[in-house]
Amino acid sequence: MRDREIWAVEWRGEARDGELVLLDQRLLPAEEVHLTYLGAREVAEAIRDMVVRGAPAIGVTAAYAMVLASREARRGADSRAQRLEHLSAARAALAATRPTAVNLFWALERMWRRAQSDDSPEAMLELARALHAEDVDGNRRMAALGAARIDSGMGVLTHCNAGALATGGVGTALGVIARAHADGKQIHVYVDETRPRLQGARLTAWELSRLGVPYTLVCDSAAASLMKHGRIQLCVTGADRIAANGDAANKIGTYSVAVNAHHHRIPFHVAAPLSTFDAAIPDGDHIPIEERDPSEIHAWGDERTCPEDARIYNPAFDVTPASLITSIFTDAGEIAPVGRDEVHRLLASRDTRREQAVPAS
Amino acid sequence: MRDREIWAVEWRGEARDGELVLLDQRLLPAEEVHLTYLGAREVAEAIRDMVVRGAPAIGVTAAYAMVLASREARRGADSRAQRLEHLSAARAALAATRPTAVNLFWALERMWRRAQSDDSPEAMLELARALHAEDVDGNRRMAALGAARIDSGMGVLTHCNAGALATGGVGTALGVIARAHADGKQIHVYVDETRPRLQGARLTAWELSRLGVPYTLVCDSAAASLMKHGRIQLCVTGADRIAANGDAANKIGTYSVAVNAHHHRIPFHVAAPLSTFDAAIPDGDHIPIEERDPSEIHAWGDERTCPEDARIYNPAFDVTPASLITSIFTDAGEIAPVGRDEVHRLLASRDTRREQAVPAS
Repeated sequence: MRDREIWAVEWRGEARDGELVLLDQRLLPAEEVHLTYLGAREVAEAIRDMVVRGAPAIGVTAAYAMVLASREARRGADSRAQRLEHLSAARAALAATRPTAVNLFWALERMWRRAQSDDSPEAMLELARALHAEDVDGNRRMAALGAARIDSGMGVLTHCNAGALATGGVGTALGVIARAHADGKQIHVYVDETRPRLQGARLTAWELSRLGVPYTLVCDSAAASLMKHGRIQLCVTGADRIAANGDAANKIGTYSVAVNAHHHRIPFHVAAPLSTFDAAIPDGDHIPIEERDPSEIHAWGDERTCPEDARIYNPAFDVTPASLITSIFTDAGEIAPVGRDEVHRLLASRDTRREQAVPAS
Repeated sequence: MRDREIWAVEWRGEARDGELVLLDQRLLPAEEVHLTYLGAREVAEAIRDMVVRGAPAIGVTAAYAMVLASREARRGADSRAQRLEHLSAARAALAATRPTAVNLFWALERMWRRAQSDDSPEAMLELARALHAEDVDGNRRMAALGAARIDSGMGVLTHCNAGALATGGVGTALGVIARAHADGKQIHVYVDETRPRLQGARLTAWELSRLGVPYTLVCDSAAASLMKHGRIQLCVTGADRIAANGDAANKIGTYSVAVNAHHHRIPFHVAAPLSTFDAAIPDGDHIPIEERDPSEIHAWGDERTCPEDARIYNPAFDVTPASLITSIFTDAGEIAPVGRDEVHRLLASRDTRREQAVPAS
């Protein structure tokens, strides 16, 4: 399948002798290098260093890392208590990598609960594979839902990367776009380069080139004038965490896109699986926002671009309030309008369905 | 004077043996290199390559380039007609460098009219110096006007560079900010890095460090969330051309700042001398917008950051409609509200004053 040519995370082999393979996204688009991981702590480092990124992909990766941890525990520990201690430490190391994307904590929580009933690598891998498959299927459902909102002739803006590279499957926002294109709709995608790490230029443009979807890359700050000149009819982005009221954290700059879309009366959609929702967080003000190193901003290649004494503020995410979101495409249906009651209804349906879809944990 | 430590353009010496010196802004903040020019065509190249940039600075530079042209004409041509022909060619070469900033055409027009009455290098230098002095004085008046709108405790956002580096004097928007600071007001400046060429990081941060004004550098796309979190109380930018109705073209991304400021009910001001106004252009839709090379976007230092086949759109400017501009600080007073009648009144006062302030051309 064409849409599976691109993948960010893969488990190869069985539970006892298998390995976790990640596409090193820091090297794209120049090089496609796959890195192999056999230890949970190395995977934690890979998540922190952004070898792999994107909320759903981080979740799937962390699940497989717990499989690696369960194998380590078998080797080094005799008692079940010792094994669980090792798994608990691995879980803590993985949880400490990045604070905003909730899929990470969601996946770790499910793997941890599984370990408490059966911490064998086989049982852990079974659940990790199920979570991965759930993400793949969810991506497809979201893509179909979202693509129905896209018509031929539309210009579609996206920010950052919410594609195959950010998930276990075809992507969230970019999955929607790819599906509209695959359905034969004549669309043109506008890709925000997405400062500071340029995931739009490095990753989204790369995916769209691979998929043969026509696109134009622009600086983030050009999006507003594209809207003003009628070049954009719909915006769609992913999310890293969605609060109980529908406020959505996503890559820094998403909020500006949403404000501009609102000003120009252009629909602004979010695509995210239910694993991105955090019912424990009442609203966006409570979502922890990761602040990353100033070095992401103060250099251009090897060249320093601002004075040595420059103070830099580098938040990795911002929060778009539910009031600016036209709808959220999820793996369990579309949330529209976006508000506390609508989110609550969908999450309740997830809790019912989960018992049936995935091996009990 | 401290505020004159930073300068972008300077004429050294007399008309017959003098030279034009430009600070090479492409090398900032790493190196301070001054380049000396003796020929008008070399100056045109310097403007195109952005050795010097910023609408008022380009205007002053072009005026001095016409002095160089008048000297060349003396050497190569015997008749007045031949000299004017040479000057006309130099004027055309200078006018072809950058299409958006109107100060360029304004300065060339005034120098050309002077040449028609007296094309001696002495007469040309006299007018160029007068235009330069007019810009310096205008900067000071604007700075005083604008600083009156800034209170202690404010966070002030600016985009791109509208400082001493962009003008003949202390700057337009950054002149306002520097003046508020010099007046003892406790302000904090938020500086958009300003993709693609990073003039905020490279130039504005450098100027603010020099002036000792506290500031924080952010990615352009972070401005919206700063506004949302109450960190910004006022926005002020420069302009490259202002239409008869008050619509203002400025660095790409300015429009997004204005839309976000409007959404958050934060005043958005423009600071520009009357030489930036173009009464012949009815509104912003008619302002020509320069599109620059994709290479400004597709590489990070030496590294290509997007696929080879990526289509890139790189407009250098956008237009902020008058309706989003709280007021315009000019060298002849503040325009508020911003509209066709108010702009017309101020331009009429300029046409009266010009006869008195500057040697007749």
